[in-house]
Amino acid sequence: MSSYKIDDRNRVKRVPYRGQYDKQDVYDVLDAGMVCHMGFVADGQPFVIPTLYGREGDTIYVHGSVKSRLMLQLEANPQVCITVTHIDGLVLARSAFHHSMNYRSAVVFGKARKVADADKNHALTVISENMIPGRWDEARPPTEKELRVTTVLAVDIEQASAKVREGGPVDDKEDYELPIWAGVLPLNLVPGAPIADEKLTEGIPVAKSVEAMIE
Amino acid sequence: MSSYKIDDRNRVKRVPYRGQYDKQDVYDVLDAGMVCHMGFVADGQPFVIPTLYGREGDTIYVHGSVKSRLMLQLEANPQVCITVTHIDGLVLARSAFHHSMNYRSAVVFGKARKVADADKNHALTVISENMIPGRWDEARPPTEKELRVTTVLAVDIEQASAKVREGGPVDDKEDYELPIWAGVLPLNLVPGAPIADEKLTEGIPVAKSVEAMIE
Repeated sequence: MSSYKIDDRNRVKRVPYRGQYDKQDVYDVLDAGMVCHMGFVADGQPFVIPTLYGREGDTIYVHGSVKSRLMLQLEANPQVCITVTHIDGLVLARSAFHHSMNYRSAVVFGKARKVADADKNHALTVISENMIPGRWDEARPPTEKELRVTTVLAVDIEQASAKVREGGPVDDKEDYELPIWAGVLPLNLVPGAPIADEKLTEGIPVAKSVEAMIE
Repeated sequence: MSSYKIDDRNRVKRVPYRGQYDKQDVYDVLDAGMVCHMGFVADGQPFVIPTLYGREGDTIYVHGSVKSRLMLQLEANPQVCITVTHIDGLVLARSAFHHSMNYRSAVVFGKARKVADADKNHALTVISENMIPGRWDEARPPTEKELRVTTVLAVDIEQASAKVREGGPVDDKEDYELPIWAGVLPLNLVPGAPIADEKLTEGIPVAKSVEAMIE
């Protein structure tokens, strides 16, 4: 199956023609990101936590600031919502009303489960490769002890949707004559110059994985 | 009161020394962002939706892709969690285990309520000024009809916390001798060159609000 089942949970309700349900469209948004926002529920209260992630097939792996509270709550309610958003630009219309933003977002639904110790190394590789391809093979691999104290969650995607807005502003017909500048201010997450650790041994060149990010 | 009450809901549990509860610290993170991720609960299922926002005092205003489902659900459960995250850089350690990210995030808890028609114009100004200062006064103001069909929510902050990671990698003592590059790759959301609307009347210069963003 190449697209997600559409129902009330994942249907894009506002500006529905911008909704996408093909798996590849969702993957494209997920794979372009580094930080997701994961929502879960504890005693009726929603929590939204930013965390690193990686995708492999229809599974999203997360780890990091999702420690104890989430772990306890997941046994009561394993349902999570993982959202990834890219800000692509400000859309500046002639009217305040038609201002908008260019963006790509993916909203994913699924149940979180703990990754077994034996599978953690692989899951962490997926997260690392999503963050910066090639870095995993440059770094000192995790020890068994490090893996044991690391919590990794897997979320198999049950349903998802992507939503994309692109292009210029759309104004009301009569507003096009107004003497107001309109257009798009593009925004991009751009890498700066790498900053070597102050304790870096002299003579070690910048990592290839880092060079590839700033090319 | 200049800081938020700390309890189990907003306490930063993972790496607690990075947690901040002063209102100004939370405001600083909120005011530096354009898109928040708003979490709400419907029938036990969490939803996380990206949307534009603005802050005034201890109130956050949102509008946009939060239409019908949220509106219905808020009557059953008005509790929301609003999270804003800035990605500041990749933290590349010598060990895979100590890789991290520099970031600033704020997590806000409160109840959402609809903004009355009479107050919408002001709330939208706050959102617009947060997105791009000065633009509101350049654009054609909203008509009464436009305000009527716009949904704006206000969330009065009950509790919040900010979390900030900055600086270089921290490796285990014995790893500093490894011949592996370590450091930080800074990341910034950077504006590109403004793209004029293809229907823009000739001779209209780029808006001052846009020029100020790219200075």
